[in-house]
Amino acid sequence: MTKLIEFYFDFVSPYSFLAYKQICKIEKEMKIEFTYKPILLGGLHNLRKITAPAFIEGKKKYMIDDCKMIAKKFDIKFQFNQNFPINTVSLMRGILTIDQNKKGKYLESFFDAYWSSNLDLSNNDVVKKILGELNIDSEYFFKKINEDEIKNLLKKLTQEAYDKEIFGAPTFIVNNKLFWGQDRLDYALDEYKNSI
Amino acid sequence: MTKLIEFYFDFVSPYSFLAYKQICKIEKEMKIEFTYKPILLGGLHNLRKITAPAFIEGKKKYMIDDCKMIAKKFDIKFQFNQNFPINTVSLMRGILTIDQNKKGKYLESFFDAYWSSNLDLSNNDVVKKILGELNIDSEYFFKKINEDEIKNLLKKLTQEAYDKEIFGAPTFIVNNKLFWGQDRLDYALDEYKNSI
Repeated sequence: MTKLIEFYFDFVSPYSFLAYKQICKIEKEMKIEFTYKPILLGGLHNLRKITAPAFIEGKKKYMIDDCKMIAKKFDIKFQFNQNFPINTVSLMRGILTIDQNKKGKYLESFFDAYWSSNLDLSNNDVVKKILGELNIDSEYFFKKINEDEIKNLLKKLTQEAYDKEIFGAPTFIVNNKLFWGQDRLDYALDEYKNSI
Repeated sequence: MTKLIEFYFDFVSPYSFLAYKQICKIEKEMKIEFTYKPILLGGLHNLRKITAPAFIEGKKKYMIDDCKMIAKKFDIKFQFNQNFPINTVSLMRGILTIDQNKKGKYLESFFDAYWSSNLDLSNNDVVKKILGELNIDSEYFFKKINEDEIKNLLKKLTQEAYDKEIFGAPTFIVNNKLFWGQDRLDYALDEYKNSI
């Protein structure tokens, strides 16, 4: 059995972005492959009846400072997006529609657009521009993400995360063990290394 | 101006305990002194209208595993208390009543009793036994913690934490910057070291 590190994420989550950037480095330097598991975080929170920190007055301000502090520590180019939070359902469904060989670039482009370049991804013109840069046909993209098959697939993936007792993003799973938050990536890596 | 690291905590919080144990080690090895700031976490959560993870079905189970994992990493003797959560108002008020020279021992004894030895601190007989071991007169203790002066002092300290935008425990403050969670202790130490 091949050991894996699963990475559950949503573009809307700044901590998912901060984890993603660390993962990219780890994949390159340590030759560890992560399995990317897109979920709709808003949907998961609804299933769990959890209010996200973005919607808790006293927490949001701290979260912004905290993210900046982590980005600085890991030397990640980061801006807290002015259009936060947004509905990422289109972009998350999009991951499920595009060719395998474009997936890496797609993730990088939209993560960076939202969390490094402060772009407004709730604006479809901005999304279309990025798709163009990736040589992805916008018309096809928007048609696909509105098909029931893709809609249901993202729902299924989110439900699967729920069934695995996940309640937030990013979450890592190694050996059926949950690790929640970018600050638990080290623990997930330890679990991975101790089990291969 | 002397730089300080403030440590806001409540006995009921397992992450406060895990931070406390790391702090004890740091104080000894690095000659850094922390300022202990007792607060009533339940009261703070009420002020903020935050539901603690202990009361969120999907989070509590993870929290238990997470605490055990952190304790293992830092070699801290830890058991997740079977009587969790409890009302810690008496014990937190207690901190405000006892002699300065007994404070360190008081903190250690009650933190350990709850989070290393799995004792039921909602049982006054258990509390009295520990007070006895500390040579603290139980009768005086229970009289004092029911006086308005002490009641109001804990309320005041909790309100002050709220006014400083604190929303959880443990929280560290260095140079007016907030660091929330035992996993941010390193960041608080960096802030401290870079500013002295």
